[in-house]
Amino acid sequence: MKKYRILITNDDSVEAPGIRKLIALMRQLGDVIVMAPDKPQSGMGHAITVSSPLRMRLLHKEHGYEEYSCSGTPVDCIKIAEKTVIKGKPDLIVSGINHGSNASINVVYSGTIAAAIEGCIEGINSIGFSLDDYSWSADFSHVDEYILKICREVLEKGLPKDTCLNVNIPAQNGSPVKGMMLCRQARASWVESFDARKDPHNKDYYWLTGVFHSDDLAEDTDQWALKNNFVAIVPLHFDLTAHHHLKTLHTYDWKI
Amino acid sequence: MKKYRILITNDDSVEAPGIRKLIALMRQLGDVIVMAPDKPQSGMGHAITVSSPLRMRLLHKEHGYEEYSCSGTPVDCIKIAEKTVIKGKPDLIVSGINHGSNASINVVYSGTIAAAIEGCIEGINSIGFSLDDYSWSADFSHVDEYILKICREVLEKGLPKDTCLNVNIPAQNGSPVKGMMLCRQARASWVESFDARKDPHNKDYYWLTGVFHSDDLAEDTDQWALKNNFVAIVPLHFDLTAHHHLKTLHTYDWKI
Repeated sequence: MKKYRILITNDDSVEAPGIRKLIALMRQLGDVIVMAPDKPQSGMGHAITVSSPLRMRLLHKEHGYEEYSCSGTPVDCIKIAEKTVIKGKPDLIVSGINHGSNASINVVYSGTIAAAIEGCIEGINSIGFSLDDYSWSADFSHVDEYILKICREVLEKGLPKDTCLNVNIPAQNGSPVKGMMLCRQARASWVESFDARKDPHNKDYYWLTGVFHSDDLAEDTDQWALKNNFVAIVPLHFDLTAHHHLKTLHTYDWKI
Repeated sequence: MKKYRILITNDDSVEAPGIRKLIALMRQLGDVIVMAPDKPQSGMGHAITVSSPLRMRLLHKEHGYEEYSCSGTPVDCIKIAEKTVIKGKPDLIVSGINHGSNASINVVYSGTIAAAIEGCIEGINSIGFSLDDYSWSADFSHVDEYILKICREVLEKGLPKDTCLNVNIPAQNGSPVKGMMLCRQARASWVESFDARKDPHNKDYYWLTGVFHSDDLAEDTDQWALKNNFVAIVPLHFDLTAHHHLKTLHTYDWKI
């Protein structure tokens, strides 16, 4: 049997319980290299570090397992692991398990998902995993069979070209998960507000806060799946072209 | 005639020549609010600031014009401008003019384009503008008529739902621009390398560098348009679902 090489990252930092769980699971499937941020990098989207250098630290090394932290973003982690540690392409990239849902519009803001998309851009089978529970002490006890099944299926069959998976798992709520469901990304947005405060020097500062809002109630979305206790699997791509609107836009006047 | 309200941001910082040009142009079309990063934020993708507070500074105010800098990312700038300054939705968001192309895969990494996508998520007509010239002293003298034409067309007709525009303008090269072209995002990636160095304390650090690579030579892409001296207009959306691969993925075994 082929020995798989699996690269793991996340955005909650190398110390997060979610990535520790993912490491334990992936070690059942192959050799593992971990390259994860040395501090939380939530909400970093597809950010890369271009104006300052990166640092890397070897935290642990044994046969079939290497663990590093990196000062950069999740996308930086993918790039630096490939180029300086693996010096080639792993068979699989997994990112997470994120503490908190990355369903719907959250894909756009998520460093965890950006890392999977980055792998996909580079032609590597990549999957982002998230649990619909923001707590640091979230219960990950029900996730094993779903994550292992998805990874085995992807390692065996490969993903379609230029496609990665965004997998969201319902929070542990006492009821058994009903199964896995292929979905599309629900249409939603965050309705933000800014909490304005004064610092001790009487200067203004602002905290970003927000409430998730969706009026996309269709039954083929990741939001619907999560709400109904299914594991939601959304295939993602990185062609942001709104192909379906090219025709309409051709009716506009673009002549000078 | 309706007086338009236009919000401007970028990722090269409020001091960049590109945004100064865009401000001058937009003041011909309506009232302008600028909320731009107080330092360069290139490569920030769709990052938002969740773990630290934001600062904002009023730099200039006169009738029909307000200019602020913000300590956050381009996406933060859009959010904070809407919620704390405009307290509503502007008629148009423009981001840029970026120093350097945001064609092809660069949309994924660009803070400039992320700001336009953020506006789009919030239902506002939004456009990202970039010049295919990375220099701080880039020549913007040929861009006026294209930017004004596109903005007038969008203000008049509106954009299709959940769509924004990614506009890339050829560098000034002595030849007249041939016109404007609606395109799709070219398939490409960056081939990275890391420049490993030792700091004065003999510790390793790494600079991310990369070379743009595309083998998508079709004539309907933004890369082709730029290379052939056309202004490239790509409509973007934020549904990352790879709808065209859902069918294939239904043939995989997702049963536990």
